[in-house]
Amino acid sequence: MNKRLVLYVLGLILLVAAALMVLPIIVAIIYREKSGYAFLWAIGAALILGLPMVLQRPGNHTIYAREGYVAVALSWVFLSLVGAMPFTISGYIPNYLDAVFETVSGFTTTGSSILTNVEVLPHCLLFWRSFTHLIGGMGILVFMLALVPLAGGDSIFLLRAESPGPAVSKVVPKMRTTSLILYGIYFGMTALLVILLLLGGMPLFDSLCHAFGAAGTGGFGIKADCMASYNAYCQTVITIFMALFGINFNFYAFLLFRRFKMAFHISEVWTYIAIILLAILVITANIAKQYPSVFQALHHAAFSVSSIITTTGYVTENFDLWPELSRIILVCLMVIGSCAGSTGGGIKVSRCIILAKSCRREVMFLLNPRSVKVVMMDGKRVPDNTIRGVYGYCTAYVLILVASLLVVALDNFDFTTTVTAVFTTLNNVGPGLNLVGPVGNFSAFSALSKIVICFDMLIGRLEIFPIVVLFMPSTWRKHS
Amino acid sequence: MNKRLVLYVLGLILLVAAALMVLPIIVAIIYREKSGYAFLWAIGAALILGLPMVLQRPGNHTIYAREGYVAVALSWVFLSLVGAMPFTISGYIPNYLDAVFETVSGFTTTGSSILTNVEVLPHCLLFWRSFTHLIGGMGILVFMLALVPLAGGDSIFLLRAESPGPAVSKVVPKMRTTSLILYGIYFGMTALLVILLLLGGMPLFDSLCHAFGAAGTGGFGIKADCMASYNAYCQTVITIFMALFGINFNFYAFLLFRRFKMAFHISEVWTYIAIILLAILVITANIAKQYPSVFQALHHAAFSVSSIITTTGYVTENFDLWPELSRIILVCLMVIGSCAGSTGGGIKVSRCIILAKSCRREVMFLLNPRSVKVVMMDGKRVPDNTIRGVYGYCTAYVLILVASLLVVALDNFDFTTTVTAVFTTLNNVGPGLNLVGPVGNFSAFSALSKIVICFDMLIGRLEIFPIVVLFMPSTWRKHS
Repeated sequence: MNKRLVLYVLGLILLVAAALMVLPIIVAIIYREKSGYAFLWAIGAALILGLPMVLQRPGNHTIYAREGYVAVALSWVFLSLVGAMPFTISGYIPNYLDAVFETVSGFTTTGSSILTNVEVLPHCLLFWRSFTHLIGGMGILVFMLALVPLAGGDSIFLLRAESPGPAVSKVVPKMRTTSLILYGIYFGMTALLVILLLLGGMPLFDSLCHAFGAAGTGGFGIKADCMASYNAYCQTVITIFMALFGINFNFYAFLLFRRFKMAFHISEVWTYIAIILLAILVITANIAKQYPSVFQALHHAAFSVSSIITTTGYVTENFDLWPELSRIILVCLMVIGSCAGSTGGGIKVSRCIILAKSCRREVMFLLNPRSVKVVMMDGKRVPDNTIRGVYGYCTAYVLILVASLLVVALDNFDFTTTVTAVFTTLNNVGPGLNLVGPVGNFSAFSALSKIVICFDMLIGRLEIFPIVVLFMPSTWRKHS
Repeated sequence: MNKRLVLYVLGLILLVAAALMVLPIIVAIIYREKSGYAFLWAIGAALILGLPMVLQRPGNHTIYAREGYVAVALSWVFLSLVGAMPFTISGYIPNYLDAVFETVSGFTTTGSSILTNVEVLPHCLLFWRSFTHLIGGMGILVFMLALVPLAGGDSIFLLRAESPGPAVSKVVPKMRTTSLILYGIYFGMTALLVILLLLGGMPLFDSLCHAFGAAGTGGFGIKADCMASYNAYCQTVITIFMALFGINFNFYAFLLFRRFKMAFHISEVWTYIAIILLAILVITANIAKQYPSVFQALHHAAFSVSSIITTTGYVTENFDLWPELSRIILVCLMVIGSCAGSTGGGIKVSRCIILAKSCRREVMFLLNPRSVKVVMMDGKRVPDNTIRGVYGYCTAYVLILVASLLVVALDNFDFTTTVTAVFTTLNNVGPGLNLVGPVGNFSAFSALSKIVICFDMLIGRLEIFPIVVLFMPSTWRKHS
């Protein structure tokens, strides 16, 4: 493995992290908060660590799959370790492991928190917390690639390792242009959301934080009751934008380039919308009795469905009190997740489509062994390699799920809490049911569980394999 | 589809059912129980229905995959409908749907009950309830095939449709001989178990019923506290035999033919044993504090692990009161299940091995796309068709799991009850957690949930596809 190159990438990441932490300092200056100094210390640490790594330029710039995975996985770990510093230095999250949990939850756009009351945090920390969602949403490495091209390196490996979904297709032939276009759409939509929230009377600071959380499908709130105290207009805007950020960004890129036919050919998007509408319908019918009007039930059902399937995790209502059918539907939506190529988590709708279609093929094959059917999607044949990849992914997903369950179960919470805590973090959602429900948090878990859950969040965001590669002995063998 | 042939098979099944119900009548005569008459009525019904179907012999004896699946699925449905009659006619389970639930649970060797107190049942009904496990364990059709060969028919399709596991291999070239050998082992081991239980002081009637339940990996008890009031010797014998009945029967056949090398080459058996030992070890450590001695903890851990992984479902202790880690391990064991080619349910150990190995292959492929690795098992290459079949199976399993969860959730029980009720029945285990835990039962569920759970039990026993084919419109189209 080209270790020097990996170190170089990690160094760059640390410098980018240092640069990004300038923003919360500005917030601290505006609100005259002392906690801003904590960010200075963290920036100092990032520079001291990062600069020597960057100064030693690697001779060989080739990135193979293994280097790509290791670089991506370690980048996210380093980023979280540095990003957690301000929380501990400022004293608001004295336990560094808790701070790392909170930061990993931020960067991975999970939104699970160990804080029992977020309202005591100063603005600069609240801003940083939400800002990590925005950074994590599109992937810091893709961002870096757009700015700092590694000359000669086959950087598609980095993009693949960090982008959600079974296959990354380039919108335009040049990778750098692709990432710039995607980033343009991302920031454009975020800006539009901020404006719409401001028009609804939400303060600027709140609008920014919530827009970051929605764009990255993260879900950290800045109020104890999350989104419940904002007006119905703002909640509706957030509902719509969460759903929009869960759509495959290629869809928007195609629209932008007026390739409408290609855009509307993405079956994943339609399936995603159909699942959302169906879930809203069923949940509305299921919870209607608990609300004064069907309209209110619809409003909260739509918000929760949009929040959970996109794995954002904002809440207006404590859905843990809803009937069991609604609760189970929400848990299923957690696992399905959003579209590939969006900022959301979960298994991804396109993987679910491929699974369902190839399952159908197997039934047909059983009935008529001479039938050799191919799996089609978006008018194209899905290569057998891709199908195998999806199956391998889902198997690994289940194995990690079970392993995490067994460790978290050591804390001896009830079945519902244990299971949904792992589901919600592995899928980067945020809230689960019972103790980790919309009004709960993760503070009660043991240090071991927190570490495992941190890895689950990273595994969920980086789609399993980069983290798995990190733990394979062969990755660290000298000769390879 | 050759409908006449399917009807003929169903007619035969009804006659076999009538013949089998003679046994509980003998029990009724011994214990002078009036409920014996209920069986006479049921036999009458089976004969009136079955005889006309058998008398019309089909001209064409060819069984294709579709006919095979439909015949198997409908056989089990018919068998359950007829087998349920005595419970309702005798008045002990007045609701016929409940009686069907109990009988499906018996034939599919699940062991979930809607009875709140089994001890009020007369001996003949208790005997019949346990006897359905023995019949269901090896499959009534395989049994029939051994006795009534369909001349010219390719009856391997029936065997495949009814036998658990990814691939049925013939122990000897002739299919009929294979089933006779397997039946010989099955009844031989059951007889041995009865003798060992008698030696431990268990009454003959109890020994028979418990041996039937262990052999079929069913789990219906005849006492309110299931196995708790029997002595430690009997419990240990049951522990060992449950585990033995969960082993691939080919293993015993190979031992019988002194093909030791082939027997010890079945990696599934070793993996199965390893899982059992590991689970016992962890659970013992986890529950040790709750018991006066480590030995007692080990005793109950071993019993529960053996009972749950083989999907039998006998209980000595209320494991619902154990710590969360033990509870989650037991739920995992439910899903893994026993070996292919045994009488147990679950996904089967061999499928899990294939999943894990092919998942490993995918990771390797990601790291080095030029590596084309094959998946090996028992020293042979696993064909890609088999791997695809396993994946298709597991996908269908998850889809059915989710669909069932959504329906059962309508009853609005808690998350743990809803989830484990579906898990335990789809895997033919018996007890779940919470309301359906070792001391609970399924009586509180709605009619809709009971019907869905009945299908889940059949789906679990027949390994999904026969029941799925039953619901495919193309199966019932005229021209096919």
